[in-house]
Amino acid sequence: MARPQWTVPAHQVLRVGPDFRLGDLDHRATPGWGAGRTAAKERMAAAGDELSDLQERLFAHGRTGGSRSVLLVLQGMDTSGKGGIVRHVIGMVDPQGVQHRSFGVPTDEEKAHDFLWRIRRALPRPGMIGVFDRSQYEDVLVPRVHETVPAEIWEERYERIVDFEREVVASGTTIVKVVLAISPEEQRERLAARLDRPDKHWKYDPGDLDERLLRPRYAEAYQAVLDRTSTDLAPWHAVPADRKWYARLAVSELLLHGLEELRLEWPAANFDVEAEKARLAAQPW
Amino acid sequence: MARPQWTVPAHQVLRVGPDFRLGDLDHRATPGWGAGRTAAKERMAAAGDELSDLQERLFAHGRTGGSRSVLLVLQGMDTSGKGGIVRHVIGMVDPQGVQHRSFGVPTDEEKAHDFLWRIRRALPRPGMIGVFDRSQYEDVLVPRVHETVPAEIWEERYERIVDFEREVVASGTTIVKVVLAISPEEQRERLAARLDRPDKHWKYDPGDLDERLLRPRYAEAYQAVLDRTSTDLAPWHAVPADRKWYARLAVSELLLHGLEELRLEWPAANFDVEAEKARLAAQPW
Repeated sequence: MARPQWTVPAHQVLRVGPDFRLGDLDHRATPGWGAGRTAAKERMAAAGDELSDLQERLFAHGRTGGSRSVLLVLQGMDTSGKGGIVRHVIGMVDPQGVQHRSFGVPTDEEKAHDFLWRIRRALPRPGMIGVFDRSQYEDVLVPRVHETVPAEIWEERYERIVDFEREVVASGTTIVKVVLAISPEEQRERLAARLDRPDKHWKYDPGDLDERLLRPRYAEAYQAVLDRTSTDLAPWHAVPADRKWYARLAVSELLLHGLEELRLEWPAANFDVEAEKARLAAQPW
Repeated sequence: MARPQWTVPAHQVLRVGPDFRLGDLDHRATPGWGAGRTAAKERMAAAGDELSDLQERLFAHGRTGGSRSVLLVLQGMDTSGKGGIVRHVIGMVDPQGVQHRSFGVPTDEEKAHDFLWRIRRALPRPGMIGVFDRSQYEDVLVPRVHETVPAEIWEERYERIVDFEREVVASGTTIVKVVLAISPEEQRERLAARLDRPDKHWKYDPGDLDERLLRPRYAEAYQAVLDRTSTDLAPWHAVPADRKWYARLAVSELLLHGLEELRLEWPAANFDVEAEKARLAAQPW
C-alpha cells in the first residue's frame, strides 16, 4: 500500500539493528516523516481505516479456524505515552478484536510462577490483536536496575525471552515490539503537567520520581534489552516519543505493517451461497 | 446533563416495565428521539466525548481503590446489531478501560460448571466497563427454545439470575441490560446482505436460518426473560433496532446514564502536591 509521506517506512527506519545506541537517539526527531504534524493527522485517519479493515480480516480469519494473531508490545518509561498509544492507535479498531493487558508489579500469584507464566496467559487468541502495556521485558529491567534478584537470574532471562518469542511466532503470532523513548526534559514537563492538573493526579505516584533518578541505570538496562532481544523474528523498534503525534503515527504504521504482512484475504464461504439464498427466500418471514 | 433532543430520556422510555409486550414493539420506531438521523450523529459524537470523560473517571476511581464498575449486557437475535454496538459505541472509549467478552455455545469446560461460572469469571474489574455480547441469558433462551435441558432446570435459572445480579450490583457494578429487537423483515434483509457480500460470508452460518424459523419460540422465551428478570436493580431496556443509528444512539445514552449515576469525581491526590513539585524541580534532569 502506498505510504507517500514516509520517506522510509517506519518498520525500516525505526528498526533496532546491532549498531543501534539508545543514547544517540534524538527524542524530538521524526525519522522517516518529513511532512509535519497536520499531514500526520490526515495519515493517521487513513491508517485507522486500513487498520480497521485488516483487523476485521484477521478477526474473520480467527473465526474460521485460522491461527494468526498480532501482538503489540509497548515498553517505555513513565509518561512515555504508552497509554496514549492504546487510546489513539488501538482505539481506532473494533474493541471486539482487541485483547489488552497491562503488566504491573507481579501479584503474589504471579510471583509464585515463572516470570513468563502471566505473559503466556495473556497471549492473543487466534484472530486477535493483543496489546501488552509493559511485558516480559519488565523482568529484565526492574530487577536489574533495583538489584532485587541475583544477576544469574535476570541474565538467563534474555535468552528465555528470545526462545519464548520464537515459539510464539511459530504458533502464528506476529510480534511488534516498540520502545517509546522520551528525553528527561520532556518527562519532567509531563510529570509537572500531571502535578498541575487535579484530573491527572490519579496517574501520579511519588515513586515515579525515585524511578526517574535511576534513569541512567534504566538506559543501560534498555540498551541490553535491545542488544540481546532484537531478533529477525521479533525485532525492536525505537520510537522517539517527545512528539506524541509522531509516536502515535509511527506505532500505527508499525502495527499496520504487521497486519499487512499477513496478507489475509476474506475467508471463503464454507457453505453453498446460492442454496442459502434460496433457503432464505423460501422462509415464511 | 442536558439532553435537548431526547423528549424522554432513553433510560426511561426504553425501560421494560411489568406491562411491556415485546410483540407490540415497533421495530422501526425511535422512542424518545424525534430529531432524525443527522441530529443523532451529532448527538452520538457529543455522547462519545461524555462517555470518554466518565470512563476515564471510572478508571481513575478503580486505580485508586474504588470498587465501582459498569456492565453492559447485550442480547438480541442474529444480525440484531450487537457487534455494531461494540464497534461504534464501545469503540468511542479508551480500550484500556474495556473488558469485552462474547459468550457462545458453552465449551466442555464451561459445561462442566454451573451456568453462571463463566459469567462470574468475566465480570468487570473495578474501574472497568464490561461488555457482554450475549450473557447468562443465553441459558434461559437456547435450552428453553431447543428443549435441550429439562424445564425444571431452566425454570429455576430466572431466580438464580435475579439473585446473581443483586449480588453483582451490591458489589459495586451497575448493570445496563439491553435487548436489541429487530423485525423479521429487517433480519431477512441483513442475512441477504451477508450472503451477497463475500467479505461478510464469514459472519454467516447456515444454522442461522434454522434458528430463524424458531423466531416465535424465541419471542416467547425473550418475553419470559423480560417478565421475570427486569428488576429495579437491573432493569431491561428494549431497543428497537431496525434503524442501526437509533440503536447505537440509544445504547450510548443508556451507558452514559449508567456512568453518570455513579457521580464520580476525580480522585483526590494521596500525596502532597506542592512537595512533589519541589522534589521534581530539585532533580538533576
